Amino acid sequence: MSIQAVTSSLPVRSAKQVASHPFAPLSKDEITSAAQLVQSQWPANTDLHYKVITLEEPAKVEAVPYIEAEHAGQKLPSIDRKALVAYYIRKTNKFHEAIVNLTTQTVKSNVRLGNNMHAPGDGSEIVEIERIALEDESVKAELAKLQLPEGTVVISDPWIYGSDGVGDDERMYQCFLYMRDPANPSEPDSNHYAHPLTISPVISTETMQVIRIDYLPTGKDNTLKEPQPYKPQPANEYVSEYQTLRTDIKPLHVVQPEGASFTVTEQGTSSVVEWQKWSFRVGFNQREGMVLYDVRYEGRSLFYRLSLSDMNIPYADPRHPFHKKSAFDLGDAGAGVMANNLKLGCDCLGSIHYLSAVLSDDKGGIVDMPNVVCIHEQDAGIAWKHTNYRTGRAAVARNRELVLQSIITVSNYEYILAFMFNQAGEVIYEVRATGILSTQPIDEGLEVPWGTVVHPGVLATHHQHHFSLRVDPAIDGYANRLVYDEAHPMPRSEFNPHGTGYYTTETVVERSGGYDLDFTKNRVFKIQNTQVRNPVNGKPVAYKIHAPDFQKILSDSDSFNYKRAEFSNKNIYAVKYRDGELFAGGKYTNQSRGGTGVRSWAERNDKIVDDDLVVYVQFGINHVPRIEDFPVMPCEIIKVAMKPVNFFEKNPALDVPPSTQEFNKSTLLSEQHQQSTTTGTIGGSGDVCCSSKL
Amino acid sequence: MSIQAVTSSLPVRSAKQVASHPFAPLSKDEITSAAQLVQSQWPANTDLHYKVITLEEPAKVEAVPYIEAEHAGQKLPSIDRKALVAYYIRKTNKFHEAIVNLTTQTVKSNVRLGNNMHAPGDGSEIVEIERIALEDESVKAELAKLQLPEGTVVISDPWIYGSDGVGDDERMYQCFLYMRDPANPSEPDSNHYAHPLTISPVISTETMQVIRIDYLPTGKDNTLKEPQPYKPQPANEYVSEYQTLRTDIKPLHVVQPEGASFTVTEQGTSSVVEWQKWSFRVGFNQREGMVLYDVRYEGRSLFYRLSLSDMNIPYADPRHPFHKKSAFDLGDAGAGVMANNLKLGCDCLGSIHYLSAVLSDDKGGIVDMPNVVCIHEQDAGIAWKHTNYRTGRAAVARNRELVLQSIITVSNYEYILAFMFNQAGEVIYEVRATGILSTQPIDEGLEVPWGTVVHPGVLATHHQHHFSLRVDPAIDGYANRLVYDEAHPMPRSEFNPHGTGYYTTETVVERSGGYDLDFTKNRVFKIQNTQVRNPVNGKPVAYKIHAPDFQKILSDSDSFNYKRAEFSNKNIYAVKYRDGELFAGGKYTNQSRGGTGVRSWAERNDKIVDDDLVVYVQFGINHVPRIEDFPVMPCEIIKVAMKPVNFFEKNPALDVPPSTQEFNKSTLLSEQHQQSTTTGTIGGSGDVCCSSKL
Repeated sequence: MSIQAVTSSLPVRSAKQVASHPFAPLSKDEITSAAQLVQSQWPANTDLHYKVITLEEPAKVEAVPYIEAEHAGQKLPSIDRKALVAYYIRKTNKFHEAIVNLTTQTVKSNVRLGNNMHAPGDGSEIVEIERIALEDESVKAELAKLQLPEGTVVISDPWIYGSDGVGDDERMYQCFLYMRDPANPSEPDSNHYAHPLTISPVISTETMQVIRIDYLPTGKDNTLKEPQPYKPQPANEYVSEYQTLRTDIKPLHVVQPEGASFTVTEQGTSSVVEWQKWSFRVGFNQREGMVLYDVRYEGRSLFYRLSLSDMNIPYADPRHPFHKKSAFDLGDAGAGVMANNLKLGCDCLGSIHYLSAVLSDDKGGIVDMPNVVCIHEQDAGIAWKHTNYRTGRAAVARNRELVLQSIITVSNYEYILAFMFNQAGEVIYEVRATGILSTQPIDEGLEVPWGTVVHPGVLATHHQHHFSLRVDPAIDGYANRLVYDEAHPMPRSEFNPHGTGYYTTETVVERSGGYDLDFTKNRVFKIQNTQVRNPVNGKPVAYKIHAPDFQKILSDSDSFNYKRAEFSNKNIYAVKYRDGELFAGGKYTNQSRGGTGVRSWAERNDKIVDDDLVVYVQFGINHVPRIEDFPVMPCEIIKVAMKPVNFFEKNPALDVPPSTQEFNKSTLLSEQHQQSTTTGTIGGSGDVCCSSKL
Repeated sequence: MSIQAVTSSLPVRSAKQVASHPFAPLSKDEITSAAQLVQSQWPANTDLHYKVITLEEPAKVEAVPYIEAEHAGQKLPSIDRKALVAYYIRKTNKFHEAIVNLTTQTVKSNVRLGNNMHAPGDGSEIVEIERIALEDESVKAELAKLQLPEGTVVISDPWIYGSDGVGDDERMYQCFLYMRDPANPSEPDSNHYAHPLTISPVISTETMQVIRIDYLPTGKDNTLKEPQPYKPQPANEYVSEYQTLRTDIKPLHVVQPEGASFTVTEQGTSSVVEWQKWSFRVGFNQREGMVLYDVRYEGRSLFYRLSLSDMNIPYADPRHPFHKKSAFDLGDAGAGVMANNLKLGCDCLGSIHYLSAVLSDDKGGIVDMPNVVCIHEQDAGIAWKHTNYRTGRAAVARNRELVLQSIITVSNYEYILAFMFNQAGEVIYEVRATGILSTQPIDEGLEVPWGTVVHPGVLATHHQHHFSLRVDPAIDGYANRLVYDEAHPMPRSEFNPHGTGYYTTETVVERSGGYDLDFTKNRVFKIQNTQVRNPVNGKPVAYKIHAPDFQKILSDSDSFNYKRAEFSNKNIYAVKYRDGELFAGGKYTNQSRGGTGVRSWAERNDKIVDDDLVVYVQFGINHVPRIEDFPVMPCEIIKVAMKPVNFFEKNPALDVPPSTQEFNKSTLLSEQHQQSTTTGTIGGSGDVCCSSKL
């Protein structure tokens, strides 16, 4: 019953030798080549509006032999490079999806997509929509009613229109209007969310014209009022010039005088990262941002692919047009395109390696995305400790983590997304929500139960954030199963006469479906490989999932919100693997109808035992805004962790060298308390730390 | 409706001027004086065994005027110093509790405590018990049956006997026996938990003799076997000499070239800590370890007292004697006495200030406890960020935390306990469980549903860890109330035609009692002061509690476990304040019967609205051991946070200066990706970070 493992680490190749790895995102040449191939399908001079040009990942049946050959140092099979291109005939609603084979330079398919399948937004489109909204004469006429001071700068935040089944087949934007502080309109970074306006233009992307102007309700009900002369309100600026900054924070530097412990081998558009027995490949694409492939520990496979599958943010105000606010920030926009350019010393601290990427633009050209991922180590406190109280000897090791972080700005909101690894075989995915609340105008002095007043006349409506982490496991191999453990009290009996006994059970998840946590039973999901057994206790090797529970989507099951955000009603979805099924909310989320996401796949009721399955781990928060969340909110942090269970033979971090002052070089600030250097005595409590054998 | 606040910060006095603060733990002189006062109550030469000599904290009606006068810079009222002394007539079961007034040098009370009220263990007693167990002839006779090799070192881990109502009125210890690796008995730090023995002596502390020897069941049922000749098993050592250590970890230093941002003003046996608008006093006592008093932000009061109230660890094996394993690590032992001496560079990283303490010994003398608390800052990632996508300007601040950490060793287990503060007004309490699992012998090849085999012949039984954080709030004043918010879907209606609406409700907790979280309703508890209103939205100032849910105690409600661990069946207990009610599991937990803890206080059904209430926040884990938890477990981390809600007028961390490279001095590792210094352009995404106004 030995543990089978692929033991060789990934051979390092130079960037020149390998054109592309099958998982590598499209290179610049591949992007332009894909666009040209699609263009060639159309009459000359057809103006195509490219929405997506991205890698069409290889079929798993091809990819697995490739990566196994990589790790075994064998000849690599060849795999054709393919691209997915989604595009419009510009200024029409004719939305197409093409798959092109870049290796053979052929177009494999090129289809017009059906009703209610719309493309995500893109940067140039957003800028154009903003302009159209603000230059429209009827919008200007409405704005005139506000009697704004000369020079006021009105800002338009285009929102994906959303779905409600009411005249929403057309692809549209709902623009929410704000203004810079009217008393200070030349401040380009004025927090316009403190000055929301009641006028909301709707623009059709087919005609690129304003087709309707909505008024926003500002009271307790659906009453709409004509725009009123504006009432001056104080500003609520977040940029530093408007703050009285603290002066008493002393610098804190993270210094690695011998460099960092990780290596990053950039190979074209993807990189191999190796650190503390971990190895994996990092890619970066338009929709998902960071994706991790082929995650291994000491050469043993763990995860074929890890990615954020989507997120959904539905809002609580039931009134038009707010009832349509339900953002899919990956599907509607893209964690890749929205990624920040991370600045040295600002976003990431310590010794940093940055990864850059290339994405496509609406013309089939290139957008450089520098510094979209930062990689660094951090100290995360003590990893483990034990002091033998009889000798006083303390054994302690510190917890070093590897962090891969990216930050996305989705209009008002920011999300800081990070994969983290530690030396105890654990993988952590962390999301921090920050940025600015989405605001709407409210009559002064009013309170409503679906939001919080965060500034005079400004309401921040309650909303939920639901995230879906896609986990394609390969725990010591590709045939895994999902199980869950529960802990149950033993009934009173002769065996349990004092009522204190309890026991655990393990239940196999037989079929695809949605599953919930149940803390009352301490239900914990594990992904197991029953073909590989722990040599000490014979249990199947596994990784367990630690995810916090959360209130599921509150929109009712007949709502579009519920039908579209297919992942947000369950803690776990488990489905049988199928190529191309990556996005828990469906491939095209913009104004979608549902039916193409993970809930629908789960309804296939596939058997998923000892097979190739994919697990979607949901987590989230119900954001009930508070004053402290304005003008920019302090990060709200959520973590999901995957930890080994009977995968190793002992604590995998036991071989981390003891934490010593010589290595860590801490500084003593207190004057009066000398650090003892004497050896331990019986009954001491850690007098002796980290020293060699007494 | 202005926010009333006590605005002056705590005046700093030198250690010489202030003899003691009313909250300061007993000084050396006070400890010995208290002992002598009690001694004087008895005939000369009566040998007293001191178990507890600790500060008897002043009545709140006295303490509040004192701290208010402190902050107002007024004349301080005088408050008598008092001590609680719990002691035995040595080698008897005559357990007494005395209250002495150190200021008047009088003994206010001195009573013999009743049945089933027993003292905690103490260091010298533990050492004695170990010796008695191993020197006892009948124990030796049993050990001889094991036919251990010459020179084998047997170790005795004395456990508090526990309660089961079966001949357990006497104060006893249940000793669990182990041995060092028999093949290597001269290794003083051999992990004896890998070699558990089936012989368990029971010792009475009244006679200090072995009164019984139990055999431990090693099968699937209650069958007991005579001790068998031992079978050699491999060792499972955790100290570094037995590991092949990793050699590829590069150092990581946390350096504060201008020192740390906090100040620690040591005043006798307590210290005032000031950092980033926070101020509080730290004490350290035998039972609770670290206690925080008078926690304020910008001079506004938040918490009168914060402390770990107790923890309980019940075990899942229903068979004798394991059914009695239910440790109260504070009440049975003490987080103060068990605290590690934290070593510079080992346990805490960065620029560290250490606090030391003095405790008492069993003879009424002094035990110096150096370096029991370490104080330092740490960087905890990004605090908040927003990028204006139109200008490309990013505003970002980093999250600096202040950490006060102590570590306790309770025989096999370790707990790392930390209070943390950040610049967004948040208080976090973090527990990390590490150390060594409690083990027992099991027949080889066997599996049982109440534990995990972690080494050949070694079972680690499932157990729960339940912690109780005592929060004595003073949110902008001493009359507070506990409420909880919930989020509910709106029913479909004309107002909510699309089924997307939801709203929040707030419910007041009227009476003392135990309350649960309910994530299906997103129930969040808040401590409010309705007399102080937020000037922006008129809502009462409050602090909310973020605590993860957990499986409550599985022992049934008739069990001693349940009756004794009064806190472990509810997420929240709220009671009306009464002096002296500090310990959620009762004052004397050793072999207790229950009835003296927070559940009992809650049954008084006091009104607690706009009054002086105390909130106990429970949190915990059900520890189902895995191989990776042996021989020392990687830290399992749980956090509870308290965050402001409508307490401030905006994000309180908004005035943290922007994160800049000049300040943070990160190091660029990647070669190929230049950091841009150009100003932002329209449509950029964070090209410009942290710069001054464009």
